[in-house]
Amino acid sequence: VGQAVHEAVRSLMEERGPGGFTGREVAERAGVNEATIYRRWGSLDNLLLDVAVNVERLNENSPMPDTGSLRGDLNAWAMSIAEEVARPDGLELLRAVLAARAATDARGDRAPRILALLEARADSIGGVLARAEARGESPPDLFTVLDRLIAPLYLREAFGYGEMAQPLDVLVDNTIAGTPRIHTDTDADTENG
Amino acid sequence: VGQAVHEAVRSLMEERGPGGFTGREVAERAGVNEATIYRRWGSLDNLLLDVAVNVERLNENSPMPDTGSLRGDLNAWAMSIAEEVARPDGLELLRAVLAARAATDARGDRAPRILALLEARADSIGGVLARAEARGESPPDLFTVLDRLIAPLYLREAFGYGEMAQPLDVLVDNTIAGTPRIHTDTDADTENG
Repeated sequence: VGQAVHEAVRSLMEERGPGGFTGREVAERAGVNEATIYRRWGSLDNLLLDVAVNVERLNENSPMPDTGSLRGDLNAWAMSIAEEVARPDGLELLRAVLAARAATDARGDRAPRILALLEARADSIGGVLARAEARGESPPDLFTVLDRLIAPLYLREAFGYGEMAQPLDVLVDNTIAGTPRIHTDTDADTENG
Repeated sequence: VGQAVHEAVRSLMEERGPGGFTGREVAERAGVNEATIYRRWGSLDNLLLDVAVNVERLNENSPMPDTGSLRGDLNAWAMSIAEEVARPDGLELLRAVLAARAATDARGDRAPRILALLEARADSIGGVLARAEARGESPPDLFTVLDRLIAPLYLREAFGYGEMAQPLDVLVDNTIAGTPRIHTDTDADTENG
């Protein structure tokens, strides 16, 4: 059942975007009872988050950019995220996170699906950061990447101020500058790809 | 009518938080027909945004922090935002922005209410930045403040990674470091990039 429902969500997302369908339509396409979906996931938003976690995990297999430098990888990745969020419904995942967050806040418990998404994303970015470390670069930690690269890309799209803000490579430079390690070798700035 | 509806929303927000009431309840409290609300605002989210713009504009009168330094002002402000978004429904405004954005995307037109909110917020921050400039500091532009201070505060709360990330004063330092290095006073035609 889980597999069929996930596949139904994925095909509906491709056709209509993540905000373009109801729980009933998912149920119909998956050939399951609508009540089954709500019993298992609680809400369509929770189901969307679970699917997003799986998509993110699959990205491990279809790997992140590997350009030979941290700057090159983050630039390529930032561009693909900027394109992704600019699509219709591109911020639907953030919306689902907020909805799941509000629902768990109201119940006073944790938000395991949001944590799972964060972990899946950490795994994706982890490859880029690990390769940078192996090359002798000192990459920022995951949370710096979230703070300095992902967060502004999301907010730019939400508020629509991206065109007035600094170009993507400034975000990337600032992300790289956020490395928690102390640079002992300052002329290592020539790492460009 | 507009005034009565705004007041109804504000009192309901205080009692239940921004996500805790329906359009019908707003109409009842304001003593207007529910259809009037949807005819005028289109959706409860749009109404919430309009109220948020007004609240933001009022913040001009009850001023932003004025501690005598840009760092002090931004630190105080970052702390108050972090507290604000950590409340139940603290991310409701972001959710309303996303909903309004999705609605305007679907219609293919602009998002005037989101722009109005951005402008009202620009006015609020503007005072802090103008005072810094008058003291001879070189403050960052609005979009740097959004990218480096507001965006991570929102994303930390949405994904719940705030405790694992760097302390607020690191965000503030990074925001200040985003200053365009223009120390000339008059022909400082600030340009991004």
